[in-house]
Amino acid sequence: MINGERSIQRPLRWGMVGGGRTGQVGYKHRTGAQRDGTYTLVCGAFDLDAARGRDFGVKLGVDADRCYADYKELIAKEAGRKDGAEVVSIATPNFTHYEIARACLEAGLHVICEKPLFFTVAECEEIERLAEVKGLIVGVTYGFTGHPLVHQMAAMIKKGMVGDIRIVDLQYTHGFNAGDDVGAGEAVRWRTNPKTAGPTFVLGDIGTHLYYLSEIVLPHMKIERLLCDRKAFIATRAPLEDHATVLMHYDNGARGRLWVSSVDAGNMGSQRYRFVGSKASVEWSDSHPDQLIYEVQGQPNQIMHHGMPYLEKESLAVDRMGALHTEGLGDSWSNIYLWIAQAIDAKRRGDDAFLKTHHYPDIKAGTEGVRWLENCVRSADAGSAWIDFK
Amino acid sequence: MINGERSIQRPLRWGMVGGGRTGQVGYKHRTGAQRDGTYTLVCGAFDLDAARGRDFGVKLGVDADRCYADYKELIAKEAGRKDGAEVVSIATPNFTHYEIARACLEAGLHVICEKPLFFTVAECEEIERLAEVKGLIVGVTYGFTGHPLVHQMAAMIKKGMVGDIRIVDLQYTHGFNAGDDVGAGEAVRWRTNPKTAGPTFVLGDIGTHLYYLSEIVLPHMKIERLLCDRKAFIATRAPLEDHATVLMHYDNGARGRLWVSSVDAGNMGSQRYRFVGSKASVEWSDSHPDQLIYEVQGQPNQIMHHGMPYLEKESLAVDRMGALHTEGLGDSWSNIYLWIAQAIDAKRRGDDAFLKTHHYPDIKAGTEGVRWLENCVRSADAGSAWIDFK
Amino acid sequence: MINGERSIQRPLRWGMVGGGRTGQVGYKHRTGAQRDGTYTLVCGAFDLDAARGRDFGVKLGVDADRCYADYKELIAKEAGRKDGAEVVSIATPNFTHYEIARACLEAGLHVICEKPLFFTVAECEEIERLAEVKGLIVGVTYGFTGHPLVHQMAAMIKKGMVGDIRIVDLQYTHGFNAGDDVGAGEAVRWRTNPKTAGPTFVLGDIGTHLYYLSEIVLPHMKIERLLCDRKAFIATRAPLEDHATVLMHYDNGARGRLWVSSVDAGNMGSQRYRFVGSKASVEWSDSHPDQLIYEVQGQPNQIMHHGMPYLEKESLAVDRMGALHTEGLGDSWSNIYLWIAQAIDAKRRGDDAFLKTHHYPDIKAGTEGVRWLENCVRSADAGSAWIDFK
Amino acid sequence: MINGERSIQRPLRWGMVGGGRTGQVGYKHRTGAQRDGTYTLVCGAFDLDAARGRDFGVKLGVDADRCYADYKELIAKEAGRKDGAEVVSIATPNFTHYEIARACLEAGLHVICEKPLFFTVAECEEIERLAEVKGLIVGVTYGFTGHPLVHQMAAMIKKGMVGDIRIVDLQYTHGFNAGDDVGAGEAVRWRTNPKTAGPTFVLGDIGTHLYYLSEIVLPHMKIERLLCDRKAFIATRAPLEDHATVLMHYDNGARGRLWVSSVDAGNMGSQRYRFVGSKASVEWSDSHPDQLIYEVQGQPNQIMHHGMPYLEKESLAVDRMGALHTEGLGDSWSNIYLWIAQAIDAKRRGDDAFLKTHHYPDIKAGTEGVRWLENCVRSADAGSAWIDFK
Repeated sequence: MINGERSIQRPLRWGMVGGGRTGQVGYKHRTGAQRDGTYTLVCGAFDLDAARGRDFGVKLGVDADRCYADYKELIAKEAGRKDGAEVVSIATPNFTHYEIARACLEAGLHVICEKPLFFTVAECEEIERLAEVKGLIVGVTYGFTGHPLVHQMAAMIKKGMVGDIRIVDLQYTHGFNAGDDVGAGEAVRWRTNPKTAGPTFVLGDIGTHLYYLSEIVLPHMKIERLLCDRKAFIATRAPLEDHATVLMHYDNGARGRLWVSSVDAGNMGSQRYRFVGSKASVEWSDSHPDQLIYEVQGQPNQIMHHGMPYLEKESLAVDRMGALHTEGLGDSWSNIYLWIAQAIDAKRRGDDAFLKTHHYPDIKAGTEGVRWLENCVRSADAGSAWIDFK
Repeated sequence: MINGERSIQRPLRWGMVGGGRTGQVGYKHRTGAQRDGTYTLVCGAFDLDAARGRDFGVKLGVDADRCYADYKELIAKEAGRKDGAEVVSIATPNFTHYEIARACLEAGLHVICEKPLFFTVAECEEIERLAEVKGLIVGVTYGFTGHPLVHQMAAMIKKGMVGDIRIVDLQYTHGFNAGDDVGAGEAVRWRTNPKTAGPTFVLGDIGTHLYYLSEIVLPHMKIERLLCDRKAFIATRAPLEDHATVLMHYDNGARGRLWVSSVDAGNMGSQRYRFVGSKASVEWSDSHPDQLIYEVQGQPNQIMHHGMPYLEKESLAVDRMGALHTEGLGDSWSNIYLWIAQAIDAKRRGDDAFLKTHHYPDIKAGTEGVRWLENCVRSADAGSAWIDFK
Repeated sequence: MINGERSIQRPLRWGMVGGGRTGQVGYKHRTGAQRDGTYTLVCGAFDLDAARGRDFGVKLGVDADRCYADYKELIAKEAGRKDGAEVVSIATPNFTHYEIARACLEAGLHVICEKPLFFTVAECEEIERLAEVKGLIVGVTYGFTGHPLVHQMAAMIKKGMVGDIRIVDLQYTHGFNAGDDVGAGEAVRWRTNPKTAGPTFVLGDIGTHLYYLSEIVLPHMKIERLLCDRKAFIATRAPLEDHATVLMHYDNGARGRLWVSSVDAGNMGSQRYRFVGSKASVEWSDSHPDQLIYEVQGQPNQIMHHGMPYLEKESLAVDRMGALHTEGLGDSWSNIYLWIAQAIDAKRRGDDAFLKTHHYPDIKAGTEGVRWLENCVRSADAGSAWIDFK
Repeated sequence: MINGERSIQRPLRWGMVGGGRTGQVGYKHRTGAQRDGTYTLVCGAFDLDAARGRDFGVKLGVDADRCYADYKELIAKEAGRKDGAEVVSIATPNFTHYEIARACLEAGLHVICEKPLFFTVAECEEIERLAEVKGLIVGVTYGFTGHPLVHQMAAMIKKGMVGDIRIVDLQYTHGFNAGDDVGAGEAVRWRTNPKTAGPTFVLGDIGTHLYYLSEIVLPHMKIERLLCDRKAFIATRAPLEDHATVLMHYDNGARGRLWVSSVDAGNMGSQRYRFVGSKASVEWSDSHPDQLIYEVQGQPNQIMHHGMPYLEKESLAVDRMGALHTEGLGDSWSNIYLWIAQAIDAKRRGDDAFLKTHHYPDIKAGTEGVRWLENCVRSADAGSAWIDFK
């Protein structure tokens, strides 16, 4: 159980690029980072509008002279301070992730970056090498995967409580883009433009959450073949998609299907994960996040609740609120940020043994997400055809 | 609202082939047929074991001498009686449907048959011609589609309450065949053998329900292309499948996905239908059958309850229990049987005008189900490839 | 599992008083009685409007000359026939139950009567004696209590799977009378008038369902003290109530609370039963009728589904549809009618041994419901005070 | 929408009494206080075991020399510092609340205290006078009432969307004390002992949450009469209760019922609030915290989701995560702590105008909770009799 006791040497000096007042995502980073005293927000380039960004930063408690006009100024000025930032979070549109991440790493700063990480696997691998050379950490904010019941699913499958995995059923859909984009805000416009969003819209924006979570739960399985059928129901979004179905064949013979959409009108129970094994199934959805459904064929269905003593130790270890008390999305983000902090702390201390077994959404997790997107696009571009995953 | 008042001239004299004591399906036919005094069970060939069948028939109230050894005897003996059966229900394994149906029609008997109707479209079309020539009705027991909320969905979509249909999401899965078939009963053995089941297992057994319901709700849409990926997780069932995913492209640009499985371990909320339009979605599941979910993007989600005055007249017309009072599967079967009786009655009276607009699961509905199966198998056999639907 | 095989010697000749075209309840009786070939509807006095009643009866398949103007004519004329009715169902307003029941019994007819049975316990006891003398059966249509999962709850508690019962939580509320009664239909008007409804409105109309079900599940427990707080939110209904709360102290120390209301605006998930024991709780609601919730403290919650092999034999014995297939309210009514038919059949055969252990809602069940109502009214009239139950 | 921008002049210097490593509640205080940079934890007397408390405090980032042996030392030492604590949270067993709160106030410190506030109304009123004299704030951590949908309910009722309130149905039950207390931990032992818990167990421990929430939602209604029936199913807990039912008559004629229990075996969906009006009902439960159920009689039921634009401004103003993203219990606590900080800040600035309209769980809210408990105990002690609320 997490109770706020510090598991690292001292709080990390933390800066943000993006995440300003006009967007939603910045607060998720801050609420994730600041709860346990693990990060201290010391600087930021919060906004394309420098004055607005400074005003905002000051309201967050940052010194006015450490609210910068852009990431370049942030890196340059912080580099010259003894108490300069050590780690920077990137919460900007996709097309800027790569250049900001590279600049931070070159300046010796650890990086925490939004998903999808970059546009290409090649970029990911380059950044991975750079981080390796510099001895720095790159974390990716797959913010949902800190939930204790996600780790319960992984532990149960590992223990054999589900049997051999046969079917993987993943869904993350909502309807917030069911209408057209006339008059849409900036957050919609950059996401539906390939120049700023990269090669995908919903596959990258929400599908990578599904894929990363499935990797955590099914670390022993690999995709062999994949078929992606994508479409823009709002034509102006093409070639990007607002709806996609992906079929997957795994190396153990399992079958996967995944649905991602932002035109699923009215759907508010957005994420659903079901893993079917030869003996039982396990299912979790963020529409009833405190509950894990465990269904053994031929027995009464079971509903497990987070924080209960009958859960696996891997789940209880990352619980914050305790049974009966809802864990929200913010709690999950806090875990992700904590795990990245522990990685950074270990890196600083040179504790390779710790890093070898420590789990967090690292650069490889980000790379795998981009690799999956590349395969999806390759299949879609080939006429929604089956392709070998590579 | 249906209240038991007879809408036909007189009760139909009805016989059954199959549906004996050892299976589950026969009772569904009887409970569907006998509730409103529309059918009188006068004879049957209930069982391969003639003595057991006779004993059973007598317990059902059938005269002992009208409990026959097989369908041939039934047809022969009943033909010689003034009060002989007029309509016969076929509740036997798939491979016998065609020969029994043909024999009944040739003997001048109306036919009510289990799904999947026959093995091939060619057989369906032959039977359709025969029924046409003979002036007889063939009904198919897609037993779930009598539910009032199914017809509410159809009426709402017709009225434009959902907008242009974009996404069709269909699921009928359970886990009763998650284990292997060693020691399995007869009902499992014939379903997993191509000689007795035909070219499919779960696609025909439960997938045709999904497909027929979607046809009722979306009469204006046609499938243009289809991809079916099927698999037998229990290897002895191959080439038949215990799991399949089907992707569908419709002529209006809509995208469909369908999942059917009998190895979805532990799943008891088995059927789910979601139709997503440009403005709203509508969803129904037999795990909460009294509720229809209507989700207009940007508004509170709505839950509609069967029998309530705010529903469309098409739904209220076929309601039996009234609001607050659960409609079960038996009520849905009663509607199907009633609608078929009304068709038979109209046929006898020569009321073509009635038949022109009367809705019931007719021979064409049965044929379309088999056509869909043929397309699924053709795609699967081509390597789970996209095919043009024909 | 019930599959329509007859468990009685021959179908009973059955008549109805009330239950005509303008009400909802008549169809529930007919769908309950006629499904298994256990009852044959031979006559009726369906309506205060004799012509309308005759027209309706004929549409139900009854001979025109056996559609009577009133119950007196029915009794007189049927008595003179060799094939006259043997059993009569009473589906009329409360104030007529007693006189019709008495007349039927005196004429040698078995009786099936709506709840609440009569106005007073004294009347009930008089009818009980009359039935005893005449050797006739009186059944009461507590129509919900035929559901297989109700009997699962009873069996689990009997087996000790819940522990010692501590808390009983009962609720049956809806909002159909939230508005005032200006312009209300006949069904509302007689229910809110003490002359036609008796001493209670919702306590008798729906509360007796709760109470009878709790008696089935908790046969070993008796109420010692009771407090009833009732109110008419629509003032014209006073002294009858549209809302009541009842607290109960049982002889084993358990505590009960019961809520009944027809002004619970918008509530469509109307009935809920929760029995809390020292080890576990069991809960059932007709808003998800196929599911029984079994909650063992400290373990994952369990959801049991009707028709599954892991259930108790008492539940499986009365299942009709089988697992995955929703049992509706009509199925429950069918069980009630079947059990009453079995009692009548045994009575006719003089099979006292059978009757000694046969469970059905009998005259005593009806009497206990009225006794409970009398206690509720006595408490309410004493200022919602605690009273000893007698 | 709350996004972390500071609404007060500067972070408050904050200390804790209690809330150490062995309990659950301390973390809820810290996660509530520390997320928005509104409070800085500068000192604490975290544990009865001074060494363990110091070790824990240091792990929380507190200087070792500001981790004190007890609250007296904390007050004495902090008083002597320029940078001493300004506000202290009390997260200790009930019986210590009064003396610690008084000592803090006398030393000029603002107080944030766990519920139930004190043992008696007299104590509450004395503390209220002391705080008034000293110009200090006392806040009470009714931690659930910061949820945006609680404030949505209040706004809807205020606007008349529900009509005149008729029925109030409140429930907070769980089963964690279903077994006896042999070998129970300290947190159970002090709660079941009148010397340490005060005059109630579950009524104070969880019932006060229900009552305070109802006060927020129904500020225009007052209780006139009340009846409390309480019981200890585990006898060693007597005279304190582990189960209680409370009936309430309000001054507008509404009827309330409340159930509170810690022996409701297996129940994990613990809190439920339903407010029934003449037109509609509104319901919220922490088992699906993101959803508000709005049921207008005669219309489809509605499910409202937190963060959606159709909600009232009062709800959106206190949302943190945004639509689709679960608000957990921690988010609610953050709101409570923020509102108390704003009150303290206004007090310091002498901004009486702000305080006049600013809503937060203040000393009066704490007092009213204790007053309600006193009435409950008075009724229970009078034989579970009706009493006038005073």
